[in-house]
Amino acid sequence: MAERKIGVGILGATGMVGQQFISRLARHPWFEVTWLGASERSEGKTYESAAPWRLSAPMPEAVRRLSVNACVPGGGPKVMFSALDAAAADTLEAQFAAAGHIVLSNARSHRMDPLVPLLIPEVNAEHLCLLGEQRKSKGWPGAIVTNPNCSTIVLASALAPLRLFTIRTVIVSTMQAVSGAGYPGVPSLDILGNVVPFIGGEEEKMETETLKILGSNGGRVPYPAVVSAHTNRVPVIDGHTMTVSVALDSKPGIDDILEAMRTFRGRPQELGLPTAPDPAIVVMNESNRPQPRLDALLGDGMAISVGRLRACPVLTHKFVALGHNTIRGAAGASILNAELMKADGLL
Amino acid sequence: MAERKIGVGILGATGMVGQQFISRLARHPWFEVTWLGASERSEGKTYESAAPWRLSAPMPEAVRRLSVNACVPGGGPKVMFSALDAAAADTLEAQFAAAGHIVLSNARSHRMDPLVPLLIPEVNAEHLCLLGEQRKSKGWPGAIVTNPNCSTIVLASALAPLRLFTIRTVIVSTMQAVSGAGYPGVPSLDILGNVVPFIGGEEEKMETETLKILGSNGGRVPYPAVVSAHTNRVPVIDGHTMTVSVALDSKPGIDDILEAMRTFRGRPQELGLPTAPDPAIVVMNESNRPQPRLDALLGDGMAISVGRLRACPVLTHKFVALGHNTIRGAAGASILNAELMKADGLL
Amino acid sequence: MAERKIGVGILGATGMVGQQFISRLARHPWFEVTWLGASERSEGKTYESAAPWRLSAPMPEAVRRLSVNACVPGGGPKVMFSALDAAAADTLEAQFAAAGHIVLSNARSHRMDPLVPLLIPEVNAEHLCLLGEQRKSKGWPGAIVTNPNCSTIVLASALAPLRLFTIRTVIVSTMQAVSGAGYPGVPSLDILGNVVPFIGGEEEKMETETLKILGSNGGRVPYPAVVSAHTNRVPVIDGHTMTVSVALDSKPGIDDILEAMRTFRGRPQELGLPTAPDPAIVVMNESNRPQPRLDALLGDGMAISVGRLRACPVLTHKFVALGHNTIRGAAGASILNAELMKADGLL
Amino acid sequence: MAERKIGVGILGATGMVGQQFISRLARHPWFEVTWLGASERSEGKTYESAAPWRLSAPMPEAVRRLSVNACVPGGGPKVMFSALDAAAADTLEAQFAAAGHIVLSNARSHRMDPLVPLLIPEVNAEHLCLLGEQRKSKGWPGAIVTNPNCSTIVLASALAPLRLFTIRTVIVSTMQAVSGAGYPGVPSLDILGNVVPFIGGEEEKMETETLKILGSNGGRVPYPAVVSAHTNRVPVIDGHTMTVSVALDSKPGIDDILEAMRTFRGRPQELGLPTAPDPAIVVMNESNRPQPRLDALLGDGMAISVGRLRACPVLTHKFVALGHNTIRGAAGASILNAELMKADGLL
Repeated sequence: MAERKIGVGILGATGMVGQQFISRLARHPWFEVTWLGASERSEGKTYESAAPWRLSAPMPEAVRRLSVNACVPGGGPKVMFSALDAAAADTLEAQFAAAGHIVLSNARSHRMDPLVPLLIPEVNAEHLCLLGEQRKSKGWPGAIVTNPNCSTIVLASALAPLRLFTIRTVIVSTMQAVSGAGYPGVPSLDILGNVVPFIGGEEEKMETETLKILGSNGGRVPYPAVVSAHTNRVPVIDGHTMTVSVALDSKPGIDDILEAMRTFRGRPQELGLPTAPDPAIVVMNESNRPQPRLDALLGDGMAISVGRLRACPVLTHKFVALGHNTIRGAAGASILNAELMKADGLL
Repeated sequence: MAERKIGVGILGATGMVGQQFISRLARHPWFEVTWLGASERSEGKTYESAAPWRLSAPMPEAVRRLSVNACVPGGGPKVMFSALDAAAADTLEAQFAAAGHIVLSNARSHRMDPLVPLLIPEVNAEHLCLLGEQRKSKGWPGAIVTNPNCSTIVLASALAPLRLFTIRTVIVSTMQAVSGAGYPGVPSLDILGNVVPFIGGEEEKMETETLKILGSNGGRVPYPAVVSAHTNRVPVIDGHTMTVSVALDSKPGIDDILEAMRTFRGRPQELGLPTAPDPAIVVMNESNRPQPRLDALLGDGMAISVGRLRACPVLTHKFVALGHNTIRGAAGASILNAELMKADGLL
Repeated sequence: MAERKIGVGILGATGMVGQQFISRLARHPWFEVTWLGASERSEGKTYESAAPWRLSAPMPEAVRRLSVNACVPGGGPKVMFSALDAAAADTLEAQFAAAGHIVLSNARSHRMDPLVPLLIPEVNAEHLCLLGEQRKSKGWPGAIVTNPNCSTIVLASALAPLRLFTIRTVIVSTMQAVSGAGYPGVPSLDILGNVVPFIGGEEEKMETETLKILGSNGGRVPYPAVVSAHTNRVPVIDGHTMTVSVALDSKPGIDDILEAMRTFRGRPQELGLPTAPDPAIVVMNESNRPQPRLDALLGDGMAISVGRLRACPVLTHKFVALGHNTIRGAAGASILNAELMKADGLL
Repeated sequence: MAERKIGVGILGATGMVGQQFISRLARHPWFEVTWLGASERSEGKTYESAAPWRLSAPMPEAVRRLSVNACVPGGGPKVMFSALDAAAADTLEAQFAAAGHIVLSNARSHRMDPLVPLLIPEVNAEHLCLLGEQRKSKGWPGAIVTNPNCSTIVLASALAPLRLFTIRTVIVSTMQAVSGAGYPGVPSLDILGNVVPFIGGEEEKMETETLKILGSNGGRVPYPAVVSAHTNRVPVIDGHTMTVSVALDSKPGIDDILEAMRTFRGRPQELGLPTAPDPAIVVMNESNRPQPRLDALLGDGMAISVGRLRACPVLTHKFVALGHNTIRGAAGASILNAELMKADGLL
């Protein structure tokens, strides 16, 4: 790709998710961060002085001296990655879309809007069909495309190949990393040597977002299954692990399911998008895998790993799934969405 | 109780579970440790020099100078608590019963024997009725009584009050403490900042032991439900937490279930046994409880705590349960079994 | 003690240290919590509804329905335990002393005031002699007595018996628990599987408070030694561990030092104060002790434990010391101070 | 380097350090693993089936099908990296040297042999001068070159630039990662939420190896300073952190020392060796760095990071140092030693 890179902006550039966008875009072959937006408190400062950098990878040189802008729609590049928290995203993202920006959002604000794609490119690339109606109905020259919650994306990705067998019900119990709660996030006194069996709003998101993602007509017809979620926080830094029991209507054999998972490919793999993991789903054979410390970074953090597929005496099958919550479950998801849109001529 | 205390022995006294027996019996009003058995390597040593003490509570003075015996049936007191590992328990426990000892065992060896009670005094005290037939059939002057696996006891106790509503199916996903694996047990490299989604043999135990415990005719007729378990190890020292989805046939309201749990009492509570927790089940109201670090020691480690009872869209209800795995799930369980037998004139 | 208990108040009753005061006073033989003070936000609420209880021991029944007062001097009982943060303590504690209260403070605000005792009853009980001059000079009918910072109290207690041998220099490196930072305190993302080699202001406190405590003339003449501190945060819940190298002028043998530590007693031990640990210093023989998880609760959390005493090739000796930072290093310290004052007729 | 790569072997290929050698050599520009040695138990198996792979980076394809050999001297390539444990290394390494192999050893067995270089290429490259005498005196056609213990290499590297100012005394207190103890290593029950203030033999190694490394005449004349070490285990996966107090004879200013550290370069940097970190020492400006989770991987795990340089009131200066114990402190160290020897024509 000898063409010039596409300049992109980051809304909410100084927070944890913003930092992850910047870090993952640092050597991206198609995109280049040219604009940083944050709260007014940071306006005019260099990024270096405005952002309390918390990633182990060092701050990319290219952004250190960029100056931080207020998040005012209309300024900056057309393509905006949104790392805004939900409170800010509620109004700002629509304003940016109205001002002509393509907003690739990691916030929850618009995920369940029937006209906004809740996109996992391997799973429901065709949901981008909503954009025409979104523009017409909202009157936006731009657009909003969202990615799922960090636990939903693991579940929905692991379930996607099982649609072959018609999914009836799903019971999932998560063990989620603390990085999912941002910074400062979970106090150490709450989680060191402990389990917190509750994450506010998380179960509802998993139970509804999953069905929109797997659904048809751009997600407006939810997938006809029922999901029940238990969400828990455990003392892990990165990587959401979950146990999943599922009832599959066509009662496939274990090998059929493994084959469906192993060969699962979507448009990112077909198009060879720059950050597409291949395989999309890593099926592990060891009896005690996947594990977050060993496997969260598979596929450069973009692969979902599954293991321990076996019969469930209550539903029909059960297994373990894992994904990297701040890569595949946040910044990396939005970036892959942007790559798909670029490949499809939608940027 | 001005009577003299009953002398008891510990089989496998130097290991972790043996230490917990000794620690919990140190100030017991009815029982007094007068005999310690271990492998031949320790024979003749003082307990102090033979046991690598690993509990934070100091070694009780009364056992420091006791000398350690080989585990030879016939010697020592009638009542023996067994902290043997399964390999040793397989043959030794039956030999002790054959020699006239009452063996209260924490090992898995005889749990599923149809003539051996798998006892939780609050749940199935009537299973002690097996002892007559056990003696007759095995020709033992003594007896073996077992307590469940450390994760099973939490699940079975939490399910016990739900029998009122007829349980059809159960899906449980555990987050288990490392102390459940003994010492040295889980290597720190495997579990620091990690989740291991597999514990060998544990799922099978939960799926079968639970139904024997809740069953009738001394457990020989398993409870007619189906249990599916996912078992996981997390970086917690003490306390097994689990999420439970359950299908209840009579479709009770949330309040009916809470009432059943809160008022659940068994013979230990009625008899006021020395280490019986009261209430047997602590129902927590906070949205993020129970948690192992805060709640595992409720009822001096003998209570089961539950919380977050709510509707399950796939089965009928779901909740979180927690118990202390090395107290209620090991030594404390055997001791409560012995208290019940003493109160019932069976020692 | 059949006398009526002395009613006491808690300034800053809803925070973590306030909760620890309440928990530790719940069954105190001499004192009874009758008054709770907090910020205006909590005024008029019951304690139960005002305090986000975070201890594993449940909230004592006696305080659940007590209503919370604003911290206005003059109201409430004469004896006030202060769990205020430094910002509030700066002005409020002096106002309470001026209004006639005896303030037993855990805050840093007045620790280095030359007229305020920085008290460890085992170490410098005689520093209470400052109170006469404090009253005269400040014009307070009441008084302020402080206890040291949670890391200083461990170091100063371990050094106290070494004054026999004349201490010249001390180099200490700490590994401190997260509970020392209060709640929410240290974010889990900062400390899970990590070490943070910096705690703001902590090294300065250890280097100066220690010398005041060990000093003469009420601490106005600092002990003539030099202390150098490295302070680090580690992923431990409770218990500050520290390695200490020390130069002792009289070059005693290892056994002389061990004897001095083992036999170290102060007025709390002589008077048999209710919460005085006995021994004050637990000398451990195992090569790998003390350890926070096993030993922080020695002496009901009030003992200091030391181990690994050996020659230091650079200074003269080195060892490991440990204490419970939220008990001996906070609420427990103030309570022992109050017990000493009560025994000395100073309340 | 279009030349053919040099084939190398790994002694002890199936253990943790052996795996790290294999992982780090997978894409090495000069070396290629062509031979794997392990205990007789593994002989004849493929590496894939013989090695319980425990690194998060997957097993390199190139070694999966290599068959494992017994460690018999004479067979295999000339250059052997030794990941043997000390018991095996005691005799085997000398046998391999006697059979003509160049053994680059991570074991402690020969480190203090006066004829064996204890090499850190940045610090004492000239110690390779021992090889001539080693060959002559031992009668070996091959040679043994060792790298230091994982905590020593951090300390010695951080001290190396301070030789400019003449080091008199050093007091170091470590906070070491569990990976330093190999697998299974430290039981999780010992270290979760805990500190273990003792690591067998570690303090002696730091106190002696450091002076040999910094010494002259190939290390036969130890550096004329005194080192006192406190070594502690903390719940960290990778990265040994240590606090260091040092007495420098020429009493330099802080800026002089920082300059000496920042500009510290050795032959690896001058020669541009493939895995040489540049800078060799990363001086961090933030007040709370270095931290193992954020900084252990600096320089691809080969850099030493230091921070918090300030005056020490007892000695003259103090600071924090950090290095990756399984990379710079083990396999990576041996590999850099081999690169230096290759560049110097010694392979």
